[in-house]
Amino acid sequence: MFFQLHHTDYSSKARAGTITTDHGTIETPIFMPVGTQASVKTLSPDELIEAGAQIILGNTYHLYMRPGAELIRKFGGLHAFMNWKRPVLTDSGGYQVFSLKELRRINSEGVIFRSHLDGSKHLFTPESVLSVQQNLGSDIMMVLDECAPHPATYEYAQKSNLLTLEWAQIARELYEKHEFIYGHKQFLFGIVQGSTYEDIRTHSATELVKMDFPGYAVGGLAVGETAEEMYKITNLCTDILPQEKPRYLMGVGMPENIIESIDRGIDMFDCVIPTRNARNGTVFTMNGKMVLKAARFKEDQQAIDPDCTCYTCRNFSRGYMRHLYNVNEYLGLRLATIHNVHFYLQLVREAREHILNDTFGEWKNMILPKITAAL
Amino acid sequence: MFFQLHHTDYSSKARAGTITTDHGTIETPIFMPVGTQASVKTLSPDELIEAGAQIILGNTYHLYMRPGAELIRKFGGLHAFMNWKRPVLTDSGGYQVFSLKELRRINSEGVIFRSHLDGSKHLFTPESVLSVQQNLGSDIMMVLDECAPHPATYEYAQKSNLLTLEWAQIARELYEKHEFIYGHKQFLFGIVQGSTYEDIRTHSATELVKMDFPGYAVGGLAVGETAEEMYKITNLCTDILPQEKPRYLMGVGMPENIIESIDRGIDMFDCVIPTRNARNGTVFTMNGKMVLKAARFKEDQQAIDPDCTCYTCRNFSRGYMRHLYNVNEYLGLRLATIHNVHFYLQLVREAREHILNDTFGEWKNMILPKITAAL
Repeated sequence: MFFQLHHTDYSSKARAGTITTDHGTIETPIFMPVGTQASVKTLSPDELIEAGAQIILGNTYHLYMRPGAELIRKFGGLHAFMNWKRPVLTDSGGYQVFSLKELRRINSEGVIFRSHLDGSKHLFTPESVLSVQQNLGSDIMMVLDECAPHPATYEYAQKSNLLTLEWAQIARELYEKHEFIYGHKQFLFGIVQGSTYEDIRTHSATELVKMDFPGYAVGGLAVGETAEEMYKITNLCTDILPQEKPRYLMGVGMPENIIESIDRGIDMFDCVIPTRNARNGTVFTMNGKMVLKAARFKEDQQAIDPDCTCYTCRNFSRGYMRHLYNVNEYLGLRLATIHNVHFYLQLVREAREHILNDTFGEWKNMILPKITAAL
Repeated sequence: MFFQLHHTDYSSKARAGTITTDHGTIETPIFMPVGTQASVKTLSPDELIEAGAQIILGNTYHLYMRPGAELIRKFGGLHAFMNWKRPVLTDSGGYQVFSLKELRRINSEGVIFRSHLDGSKHLFTPESVLSVQQNLGSDIMMVLDECAPHPATYEYAQKSNLLTLEWAQIARELYEKHEFIYGHKQFLFGIVQGSTYEDIRTHSATELVKMDFPGYAVGGLAVGETAEEMYKITNLCTDILPQEKPRYLMGVGMPENIIESIDRGIDMFDCVIPTRNARNGTVFTMNGKMVLKAARFKEDQQAIDPDCTCYTCRNFSRGYMRHLYNVNEYLGLRLATIHNVHFYLQLVREAREHILNDTFGEWKNMILPKITAAL
């Protein structure tokens, strides 16, 4: 069974479950570190495992561009290429393509775009992105969707959603005869779109549920709308999506966004924030955020978070970290990334425990003011 | 006993020994990875140990500038600051200061220079660099010397050498009453200078030997002279330096330079080549050098060196490494650095075994054409 729902929190929609793939089991709610170009920036596979990563995300657009999905196929798929033995989810590439703005044109067949690297012309269709993800060999694949820009007019969002549903239908049918070229199973998720319009979102979710995907993503959020709008739409979507399927909120977010979305019934998350912010010198702790470059950490001999069990906190001080950033040493980027990824995974692990114990609500109220503080 | 000479190869001056410090024992000949700014670029202490590092080098000039030796003292010394539990050698800072050219002025007292960072004025004296290294807490400290530029006139080299000897005498006397502020012992090395002039080098080495330092470095080489000149001067110095003291050839070099210098009786080496070249995508193997970015490695599923036991070679292919360089992923820099540091340490380990077995000469003749090849 792909997804098992173990427990729903008694006072919220927060869920604890497991996703089972041929590369291992994932305990949900889960955060997926982003490995855009077949590498979670600065980290080795060993470090990801030590930080608690159960599944990582790969970006289809970037991997399609470099090194190319056919090349990765020659290496036996993305797992073998990057030496990552646990599950991988790949997006459809749509998000990146639609971000190209001036460089792409949508028609009913798919989207024609120019590479951000060399301007070469490419076409993504519902069929082609499945084929690319087949070569990548991800455990979870995503259908091609249009992620509408924010803000979008009602008309744009509606038209865009109809196209997305059409593409989803094509992908769903193709998936019936999908060949697992590396022997392991690949699951396909549909993506709810519809901007911030409740009736379009309702239509999108309802239609996708009829198509009976193994799992569902909520896309098109965290693109500029307020957190309140995001939570409202998320809540609406999870009310419609079936209990027995995993729900993935794409591209979210800050630690508080993740907790609030777990509260609203989301099981899976991905975001570049822990890795990107680490490289900028911002680290998260259970007691708040910290900008490591700050002069006040110069003589600070404490770990980033003295209670944290990550490699960085077990071995290095804030003062040493500040020094590494101050003199632009690579090691600083990595040590901060290890810490942030560990933090995000610790956060969802704690959320899961509290869901299982029916204490999620109290925990959420206790932890939110702490993690959003600035240290 | 600080240094023990176990064996000298029967057909050359190559020596196998051990250096004992309060942070552990070092088997010589040894290569010391360079940790300029309290970090061997891209590597964690764990990775250095896994790569076989027994001692690392810290740069006094850089650490004096940032974060400052007094700050490092507050953290309990360089070992504690960077969480490196094995021995550390620090240079005197002289090499960097003399490289500043337009920004420094030498007088008999020491050298006045301007920071490369902010133009602020500083003075290094034989006393002050000892005091800085005392705060850093390195196991092996170096005296302040002038590393003459290449080429240097005879007159310049002679005058410079006299000053260097004067400074060495001051440092040697100070060392008699040197306080070990962290409890562990610190040893002081004298540095032979004299450019490429045999009589000045002879004078330098002879005078330093009279001062009876715990160990000796050969400085002022690998600064632009030919390899033949470097080997000739090295050979001359090791003929004069006492058998029962370790000899350190500063800033050398390529793998072949290291083997040739071991042949001439050198015990210790440091160089940025394995780490810097790794970041540029060049890796060393027992079968030659390799530029990982090369298109011909695109589909290559072999390890950098299939016989190498480093983390990189056990887990990743040339094709994946080429991809990481191609898309500028940090992980590539690190994986190549791990491999190169492992290679350098493997090379000196093999040299040591062959010295102990009296097979160094055959091994050298066999390995030199291989490691200098271009793959």
